Amino acid sequence: MQRVREIAARVSNWGRWGTDDERGTLNFITPEVVRRAAGCVKRGAVFTLGIPLGADGPQIGQGGRVNPIHLMSAVDGRLGADAEAPRYADDFVTMPLQCATQWDSLAHVFYGGKLYNGYPASTVTTAGASRNSIDKIGRGVISRGVLLDLARAKGVERLGPGEVIIPSDLDHAARAARVEIASGDVLLLRTGHLGVFKQDGNRQGYMTAEPGLGIDCVEWLHAREVAAVAADTMAVEVLPGEDPKVPLPVHMLCIRDMGLTLGEMFDLDELAADCAADGVYEFLFTAPPLKVTGAVGSPLNPLAVK
Amino acid sequence: MQRVREIAARVSNWGRWGTDDERGTLNFITPEVVRRAAGCVKRGAVFTLGIPLGADGPQIGQGGRVNPIHLMSAVDGRLGADAEAPRYADDFVTMPLQCATQWDSLAHVFYGGKLYNGYPASTVTTAGASRNSIDKIGRGVISRGVLLDLARAKGVERLGPGEVIIPSDLDHAARAARVEIASGDVLLLRTGHLGVFKQDGNRQGYMTAEPGLGIDCVEWLHAREVAAVAADTMAVEVLPGEDPKVPLPVHMLCIRDMGLTLGEMFDLDELAADCAADGVYEFLFTAPPLKVTGAVGSPLNPLAVK
Amino acid sequence: MQRVREIAARVSNWGRWGTDDERGTLNFITPEVVRRAAGCVKRGAVFTLGIPLGADGPQIGQGGRVNPIHLMSAVDGRLGADAEAPRYADDFVTMPLQCATQWDSLAHVFYGGKLYNGYPASTVTTAGASRNSIDKIGRGVISRGVLLDLARAKGVERLGPGEVIIPSDLDHAARAARVEIASGDVLLLRTGHLGVFKQDGNRQGYMTAEPGLGIDCVEWLHAREVAAVAADTMAVEVLPGEDPKVPLPVHMLCIRDMGLTLGEMFDLDELAADCAADGVYEFLFTAPPLKVTGAVGSPLNPLAVK
Amino acid sequence: MQRVREIAARVSNWGRWGTDDERGTLNFITPEVVRRAAGCVKRGAVFTLGIPLGADGPQIGQGGRVNPIHLMSAVDGRLGADAEAPRYADDFVTMPLQCATQWDSLAHVFYGGKLYNGYPASTVTTAGASRNSIDKIGRGVISRGVLLDLARAKGVERLGPGEVIIPSDLDHAARAARVEIASGDVLLLRTGHLGVFKQDGNRQGYMTAEPGLGIDCVEWLHAREVAAVAADTMAVEVLPGEDPKVPLPVHMLCIRDMGLTLGEMFDLDELAADCAADGVYEFLFTAPPLKVTGAVGSPLNPLAVK
Repeated sequence: MQRVREIAARVSNWGRWGTDDERGTLNFITPEVVRRAAGCVKRGAVFTLGIPLGADGPQIGQGGRVNPIHLMSAVDGRLGADAEAPRYADDFVTMPLQCATQWDSLAHVFYGGKLYNGYPASTVTTAGASRNSIDKIGRGVISRGVLLDLARAKGVERLGPGEVIIPSDLDHAARAARVEIASGDVLLLRTGHLGVFKQDGNRQGYMTAEPGLGIDCVEWLHAREVAAVAADTMAVEVLPGEDPKVPLPVHMLCIRDMGLTLGEMFDLDELAADCAADGVYEFLFTAPPLKVTGAVGSPLNPLAVK
Repeated sequence: MQRVREIAARVSNWGRWGTDDERGTLNFITPEVVRRAAGCVKRGAVFTLGIPLGADGPQIGQGGRVNPIHLMSAVDGRLGADAEAPRYADDFVTMPLQCATQWDSLAHVFYGGKLYNGYPASTVTTAGASRNSIDKIGRGVISRGVLLDLARAKGVERLGPGEVIIPSDLDHAARAARVEIASGDVLLLRTGHLGVFKQDGNRQGYMTAEPGLGIDCVEWLHAREVAAVAADTMAVEVLPGEDPKVPLPVHMLCIRDMGLTLGEMFDLDELAADCAADGVYEFLFTAPPLKVTGAVGSPLNPLAVK
Repeated sequence: MQRVREIAARVSNWGRWGTDDERGTLNFITPEVVRRAAGCVKRGAVFTLGIPLGADGPQIGQGGRVNPIHLMSAVDGRLGADAEAPRYADDFVTMPLQCATQWDSLAHVFYGGKLYNGYPASTVTTAGASRNSIDKIGRGVISRGVLLDLARAKGVERLGPGEVIIPSDLDHAARAARVEIASGDVLLLRTGHLGVFKQDGNRQGYMTAEPGLGIDCVEWLHAREVAAVAADTMAVEVLPGEDPKVPLPVHMLCIRDMGLTLGEMFDLDELAADCAADGVYEFLFTAPPLKVTGAVGSPLNPLAVK
Repeated sequence: MQRVREIAARVSNWGRWGTDDERGTLNFITPEVVRRAAGCVKRGAVFTLGIPLGADGPQIGQGGRVNPIHLMSAVDGRLGADAEAPRYADDFVTMPLQCATQWDSLAHVFYGGKLYNGYPASTVTTAGASRNSIDKIGRGVISRGVLLDLARAKGVERLGPGEVIIPSDLDHAARAARVEIASGDVLLLRTGHLGVFKQDGNRQGYMTAEPGLGIDCVEWLHAREVAAVAADTMAVEVLPGEDPKVPLPVHMLCIRDMGLTLGEMFDLDELAADCAADGVYEFLFTAPPLKVTGAVGSPLNPLAVK
């Protein structure tokens, strides 16, 4: 944790947007940034980045996370008494809020007894998170999105499980995309890991070892004032981690110290194919979470519009 | 149902977008429409239209619909063995998919044994809807949104519970908004009903009688090639209905005959205040549903961007 | 809490059955007690004491407790491919474990940082209770049951909401029942409160004020070596409590200090009518909890056999 | 299905206990039977036959059945405002009603459009079963239990997966137990299959092939007026079935034609060891289901008392 604390000292955004802030680096998304993001819509092409929410999802029960349970409460319910009456169907879902394509809230991870912006860990109870919960970013994540197609940039189908992404990989992918990262951008990192799962259906393989950001990328993200980062893996960062004694250092630094919202299990394959085809890697990115009161994460269906 | 069937004959879109279509009037949202919608972003101001998902929601158990149940599966979970280890929090939700701000899928209501586009009602089972389910519109609802502030146009805080909205009311509100409704637009109807609930917390009052569209509005919507309609009530249409013998005629005609997606419990108050202030009632509207496989509805957090 | 601590000093059973004990006063139910209990079966008449688990239950959302949500996962599922194939139905439930007829586990309430038998409160986490959980009494509660029909003994339909039961009331009801309370007995207290709810359906009335044990009864129970106590109310003890500054003192003393399992919302009306008719107030009482791992309570369907 | 229909004609109990009956062979449990059952209690030894309800259960998602999800709604909830206030813990469960030790209701399986006693299959809807649901046997299953230890009688740890139990096996085990099966008895069949799972934790192995009753046993059960049958497997009957074209024939004949309640995943190992030790294979068996309104099955924790 020594290294984590050193980097934390350099990248911390605590207090940067006020002592009451609960949105962290999403504050980089100014109205001006939103306006420019809308300007990225040239063709009117829409891409959905959410994976299906169903029993076929990738969850294997780790930490109690299971796939969504969808149950019908009515399938042929009568509206009115007679046999000819109109009918309706209705349904329920039970699911972990982080079982599929998701945002981690800034209350999702912490250390040293403090959440992002210094709120005490005791603000998270069985009643939910009273600080930094996902509904605090209900106004959403809408900004310019930039795809960094790390797999394509390296000419591989997928970065290897356990392969560490380093800053020069990010630079290389950004150059390949011919995009200059700007303050308020949301970065979408494609490693190819989800694409492999979609083909082989190997949940164990998808969930237990994955390519992802190494700890050195944290300062790179900080310097560029990135608003949020999402990837096609379940942790954004590399698993197993670089230092076996320090679990999830990128989560800790991004979420707890920088206040940077992480997105996981984003399906970037169709978008990436389109970007490779037209050479345009920037787009309007719109990804509001569900406003579950006090929740520490949210499933969502992000859209990219080119 | 005689009247419903007569109107249905005039407004039906079955087959209009092919025998396999499951998106209905969302097909009016062409790439050109999306492009123009993005052009509505002038200031970069973002509005969230979702109500909170929590125990304080409006549900009273009607048809088995309850408010969301949010439970923490971890509040201070250790990542690693030692006491100094980083911590995490995680959570679950159990909820009806139509308990709060929601889209109805085109499989939500039907009559005569057929869903939109002629699919048999038997395609909806306890396994979900194999046709017209909400995930079929996963690419979302993203288009130009137009606010019709019916309450403000009439100079009232709220249209009365049971008050029928007629086509001239829609025309009047559109004129007040100085907007010409165009093919592919999403209409957001503000009646003031949700605003009253937010103040008085009277669930019974919110859920049992409400202002809303009368049956005559259906052809008006059809003629204008509206892509989707959402309101700040729980049914969009007037309750109790105009004809006590015909339950939910607007649902039937819109969803089953036209294939028009309905949105309910949208919180339009902050947006409406802004529109009243700057006189601009059009905006980029982005409202992707969760892609719950086979679901007949979805909660969501819609955004409007001006 | 001063009074609670004084009584606690006199009634504490910590260590009485070993430092590892997690069953408390159920230890009074020796094989000899079970054998004698079986001897109470004279006629072979069976009574079910569980209230229905469904949407019509008494819950009003207090502390997040809602009524059970029962959903069908299959209603006409085919076993095999052909149309003539046999069919099946299957279902789910989502429910608070203490929403209806229930046992409180010895991990349900605590104070001073300690559970029954001195286990630290930190043994209860979002992973469940590692000590004193309901599955630790999986071998059940099976013993002689004795009905104390307090309402009938007083000649009233129901003791008044807020009416305090004192030791002489218990003595009086026991005399009316012509039963000598013996070590290991389970006492079933009928106040009439549930019977009123079954008639008027007034959830608010049932859940917010009720007759029940006053704090003076705790030592009475201790002296008699009662194994468990259940009532037809939702708290066994009187609500509002005798001292507004001390919430649930009987729970604290029984569960945390004595290790006495409490049962709530037991439907005793049919049994009571039978006892009144034949004058026999003792029976075989069999009431195993569900063995939910780490749970702090369990729904159940207790039986009385005469 | 020809064979099934032939046997059905011989074993059908439709109408035997009236056209309104919903309890089937449990009607064999007369007060006299209950009284004699109580007489089996000689030592006061209690055995719990329920497996734990938790994430470690045997479910692998077949037909949507998952293991129970247990979540805490409070772990250190304060009762009152001050820091010294007593605390409470509370919890929820979400589970398939047939995910662990369970009773199948008489509405669980059917064919030819009819449930037990001729009720139409249409009585089972998403609102639950209006006929033959599990709450209809809320007065429980309490009778004499008889253990038929098929594995021990054959001198094996476990009958082989797919091994068919035939009537002579039942006779052999009954002789070994020195018990005469009597009208109203509940038979508990121990194959050893669960014991293997408890050791190896192989869910796939436990759930997909198992020893069990062959179709010839149905008339054997009918002739003896058995009230209910439970086993240590997930289907009681052999899997894969004897005739690949006829799924679950024993379920169909027992549940739908005879009205015989089946119990599954009963843990009989501790009981069996005791029976082998003292040579007594009969006991008081008490196994009330949860009274979930309209449910087609129920988890439970059965007890045997010797």
